[in-house]
Amino acid sequence: MRRTSAIYPGTFDPLTNGHLDIIERSSRLFERVVVAILVNPEKDPLFTAEERRDLIRASIEKMAKNVEVDVFEGLLAEYARRRSAKVIIRGIRAVSDYEYELQMALANRRLQPEIETLFMLPAERYSYLSSRLVREIAQHAGSIRGLVPRPVEKALLKRFKRA
Amino acid sequence: MRRTSAIYPGTFDPLTNGHLDIIERSSRLFERVVVAILVNPEKDPLFTAEERRDLIRASIEKMAKNVEVDVFEGLLAEYARRRSAKVIIRGIRAVSDYEYELQMALANRRLQPEIETLFMLPAERYSYLSSRLVREIAQHAGSIRGLVPRPVEKALLKRFKRA
Amino acid sequence: MRRTSAIYPGTFDPLTNGHLDIIERSSRLFERVVVAILVNPEKDPLFTAEERRDLIRASIEKMAKNVEVDVFEGLLAEYARRRSAKVIIRGIRAVSDYEYELQMALANRRLQPEIETLFMLPAERYSYLSSRLVREIAQHAGSIRGLVPRPVEKALLKRFKRA
Amino acid sequence: MRRTSAIYPGTFDPLTNGHLDIIERSSRLFERVVVAILVNPEKDPLFTAEERRDLIRASIEKMAKNVEVDVFEGLLAEYARRRSAKVIIRGIRAVSDYEYELQMALANRRLQPEIETLFMLPAERYSYLSSRLVREIAQHAGSIRGLVPRPVEKALLKRFKRA
Amino acid sequence: MRRTSAIYPGTFDPLTNGHLDIIERSSRLFERVVVAILVNPEKDPLFTAEERRDLIRASIEKMAKNVEVDVFEGLLAEYARRRSAKVIIRGIRAVSDYEYELQMALANRRLQPEIETLFMLPAERYSYLSSRLVREIAQHAGSIRGLVPRPVEKALLKRFKRA
Amino acid sequence: MRRTSAIYPGTFDPLTNGHLDIIERSSRLFERVVVAILVNPEKDPLFTAEERRDLIRASIEKMAKNVEVDVFEGLLAEYARRRSAKVIIRGIRAVSDYEYELQMALANRRLQPEIETLFMLPAERYSYLSSRLVREIAQHAGSIRGLVPRPVEKALLKRFKRA
Repeated sequence: MRRTSAIYPGTFDPLTNGHLDIIERSSRLFERVVVAILVNPEKDPLFTAEERRDLIRASIEKMAKNVEVDVFEGLLAEYARRRSAKVIIRGIRAVSDYEYELQMALANRRLQPEIETLFMLPAERYSYLSSRLVREIAQHAGSIRGLVPRPVEKALLKRFKRA
Repeated sequence: MRRTSAIYPGTFDPLTNGHLDIIERSSRLFERVVVAILVNPEKDPLFTAEERRDLIRASIEKMAKNVEVDVFEGLLAEYARRRSAKVIIRGIRAVSDYEYELQMALANRRLQPEIETLFMLPAERYSYLSSRLVREIAQHAGSIRGLVPRPVEKALLKRFKRA
Repeated sequence: MRRTSAIYPGTFDPLTNGHLDIIERSSRLFERVVVAILVNPEKDPLFTAEERRDLIRASIEKMAKNVEVDVFEGLLAEYARRRSAKVIIRGIRAVSDYEYELQMALANRRLQPEIETLFMLPAERYSYLSSRLVREIAQHAGSIRGLVPRPVEKALLKRFKRA
Repeated sequence: MRRTSAIYPGTFDPLTNGHLDIIERSSRLFERVVVAILVNPEKDPLFTAEERRDLIRASIEKMAKNVEVDVFEGLLAEYARRRSAKVIIRGIRAVSDYEYELQMALANRRLQPEIETLFMLPAERYSYLSSRLVREIAQHAGSIRGLVPRPVEKALLKRFKRA
Repeated sequence: MRRTSAIYPGTFDPLTNGHLDIIERSSRLFERVVVAILVNPEKDPLFTAEERRDLIRASIEKMAKNVEVDVFEGLLAEYARRRSAKVIIRGIRAVSDYEYELQMALANRRLQPEIETLFMLPAERYSYLSSRLVREIAQHAGSIRGLVPRPVEKALLKRFKRA
Repeated sequence: MRRTSAIYPGTFDPLTNGHLDIIERSSRLFERVVVAILVNPEKDPLFTAEERRDLIRASIEKMAKNVEVDVFEGLLAEYARRRSAKVIIRGIRAVSDYEYELQMALANRRLQPEIETLFMLPAERYSYLSSRLVREIAQHAGSIRGLVPRPVEKALLKRFKRA
């Protein structure tokens, strides 16, 4: 019996509906899905890792019980090994994405040959979505309705003082 | 308990070591993997569907027992539904590949929204490998040792009358 | 006063909802849009040029009055010059598309420097759509509802004897 | 009668002959073209928005009277709506460009569905040109003759103290 | 002392000014350049291998004496070994090109590890040029002046009966 | 007699086995190869230019005597001219790489038309390797054995205080 555990890593600053779509699709395929927030000490995020974790938790409440949210620092391959994951999930949209993802996947395979990176397509209506785009729109007071889950929408409005 | 069944479709004319690599990796992640040979009545293959099926079976003999070989005609999404598969596996190498694969994946999702296409990277040493390349080398009497499993190598040498 | 006339060339074998989307968007921007069906004497189409013309006409009936359908053979740049068009419209989806389109655009510019090629994005829900995909699904009795305009749907069902 | 107004947005830090080529081509196709300089308060430009505006105005002096230069901050889609533009013009060169441009175009369409992004090719001799490249060459005392309009050339020589 | 011999392979059906540009550039870098016409028995060319050889020879007459024209069949890597070449030259234009070229280069390296494939850019004004484009224009009576060397131009006019 | 001198430019912060592979391949093809370390005064490197130069020298000790290491600042095309080089060597891996490289190559050709940029493929096992990846792994205490030459490995372990 195969009990395949998957990790879905990212910065999620903030979580978008495109990310949520990938989480939902993954949760149907794998025994357990860990949404893993990468902490990069050199970058200045919009939300702290804890805020991001709480926003993701609030956004997946109605989802299958096999999704977990975690925070990690350091090498993804090492973290995946510690979590006994067999799969790393990556959503892909564009070609430039894909090239970088491919390099990361090959690098991670070298570090942990037992762990496989699988690429998955988000729904087409989210193909233009990125956290950076969401931050940019929110910052300029554009509407983000439909781009992010409701808890993230509220947090963004509050952050940019227009709640 | 998730029992995810996956389909790995292709023409496999013939099976290469790159294909074999993807089959092996898939068999570790999913409950069941169906290697599904697409019959295209309009194309003239080097090996018949039955020959290809037998060559794949001979090549995966030592592999995990959860791999099955099948032949199908028509729409992949429809075939995947009939086989109760939740996943379609595709190996990817280059960008041009990827673009076409992405279109097929989105089209298949429309036809069967419940079935997810997952992309997987073959080992780097197989990144240049394709059935077409193997056919071309074999036809010009170049060495195909290490590019295809032994049963395929024998069949190719015989086909091009140099066994 | 600028009266810019645009040509939207293609084989349209058959017209898809993606094509229709581009026609509609173009008709809002340009004084006149000519949907120009390319006849390639070396290829064997599913529908004759006349059938394709009639299907396009039936599909754009409710559209703005500034869209015209025509059939041409030979070089696009030469045809565009004869029609006094200033613009060639191309819908783009994927990168491979784009590369080929870019080469054609540069070649056409050399043949007719006064004519500009403009690239336009179809709606995302049509980003996987192509005439080839539609033919393949129709031929294997898959559902094409929502992929093509109703007149094309009827013609395809009739052609594949399942009307 | 269609009176299509187009916006050509960018940072133009500084304007290159590739930008100028796109402006000229656009001015032949649309009733009115607004060259719109994006102000990004977080970035430190080589020339201020006002300097860039003046350099563009000096460079398009001999061009058709239907080109206007403006400065804006915030979301492009919102700015285009305020200016009653129906079209956003983007010059494209390479694939990486294209991928990013495509995401922006889809995002802008979501924010303002009535506004269409059109992609246009600069003349081939400008296909390697970018503002960044011009800045880098000028900074290292390389010749920029032929890469930028004369007013920009003078301003760069002055800025890098070699006029 | 390094005496590096290079092969520039292709179908050259017909030779274009883009090919000629690569030949000229190569002849300045390598001790000897062999323009090697690939004969594909399964394809029906516009010009026979002998005609193509004669057209290339006529077109390079004024070029450096270190360029030679040859015809070959079978595997390129094997031919390069026989000719004691250390380098295979490939001109590249677009991304799709590049992906295919990369696969061929890796395949050839596997067959002959001592032979290196080097990629070179043609002049920008030839970046849209291909033999297929030239054939298509010539066939439809479009002007090919400036796209091909004069001997090729004459041969094409004669072939399409308009000399 | 052609005596072609080649430059292999980069930041080499630090040198990887992928770089070393390109240096070795180049040294077999050209009379002289100059590994040229670009100093960028605006960026904060991990190793100083002098440290990088010494690490490269220590890593190529057993290589052919025709390889030299140098440091330069400013425009590559200008530096190549000063060194009387006819060739600039660039290793390429992914498409995004390639696009940028192509722009740089065309820009350098404009600045110095006599100097040719040649692209070369590193061995496949290094296709995922980059200096940035090496820095990231080393910083997080992952194993870099096999990714970089031994002198670089030692320097990295020392730098991150785990020698």
